Amino acid sequence: MRILGIDPGLRRTGFGVIDAQGSHLQYVTSGTIVVPADEPLAQRLKVILDNVREIVRETSPTVSALEKVFVNTNPTSTLLLGQARGAAMCALADHGLLVHEYTALQIKKSVVGNGHAAKEQVQAMVQHLLQLNGLPAADSADALACAICHAHIGPMADRLTQAAGLPSRRGLRLRAGRLTG
Amino acid sequence: MRILGIDPGLRRTGFGVIDAQGSHLQYVTSGTIVVPADEPLAQRLKVILDNVREIVRETSPTVSALEKVFVNTNPTSTLLLGQARGAAMCALADHGLLVHEYTALQIKKSVVGNGHAAKEQVQAMVQHLLQLNGLPAADSADALACAICHAHIGPMADRLTQAAGLPSRRGLRLRAGRLTG
Repeated sequence: MRILGIDPGLRRTGFGVIDAQGSHLQYVTSGTIVVPADEPLAQRLKVILDNVREIVRETSPTVSALEKVFVNTNPTSTLLLGQARGAAMCALADHGLLVHEYTALQIKKSVVGNGHAAKEQVQAMVQHLLQLNGLPAADSADALACAICHAHIGPMADRLTQAAGLPSRRGLRLRAGRLTG
Repeated sequence: MRILGIDPGLRRTGFGVIDAQGSHLQYVTSGTIVVPADEPLAQRLKVILDNVREIVRETSPTVSALEKVFVNTNPTSTLLLGQARGAAMCALADHGLLVHEYTALQIKKSVVGNGHAAKEQVQAMVQHLLQLNGLPAADSADALACAICHAHIGPMADRLTQAAGLPSRRGLRLRAGRLTG
């Protein structure tokens, strides 16, 4: 299982790719898409769309994971973040990748063992779990943490879903939207 | 000039296409993309992405226009709306279409002559201006109003920009985002 984690933002979108075989995790790549701030909104979203597409093409992940955000900042920032998230998710879904979402609590609990861990603890644990030479940058660390969370939680969640006789999330098929007059 | 107006929403995304030659407006088509509510978010965004793409392919607009939203509802709704907007704008920008944004005030003033007009007045004026047989549905009317607003304001805004010696919005080119480690 190759997991692409994304930490979307309109200025900086972090990404991180890991391979997971059972409990063994292997770092593949990570980085930050820096979006030019002086372009119109649609062009900035296209930068996210194009770059996430390029990352998907170059790294061929089998699944993707995003942080489920709970927002309590001002509405304008929330709308901008939503648009950036929408662009990233479009690139992922457009490649047929399933997009799993995890809350910050799930991610921190899964990576650090404490749902209220500080940002620095997440960075340090990402470095430790993936045996990186240095501390990953903040955006990369968040994206990698999200991927690690899916490696830990995803397969179990799927097994629980199947055990409960519910349709697995992997089985979902896209239905086209209806066009009405 | 063929203008595609979009009124994005995660449940219903309205669209409307008009031709504008000087002050003459001609209705082309309009409708609503109804997004299935029971799918995961990424699939719902892909429904918007795919359907807006299909509308662009089928109607070949030369430019597009969206309402610039000012949000004061709850953060969760704002984030969802942002994601739907992001998906619609990605589809437009991905086809190389410029996306113009207008505030509700600009749209109502341009279509009805009163920036604080009621929804029903907008619908009635859209019917009148485009010589439609019946009242357009709410989502379609909003999307068509946005397209009409661009027909009225867009060319003038571009001329003013050029007169002021500023780079025209039409001249913008996409710069790729930088990938950093």
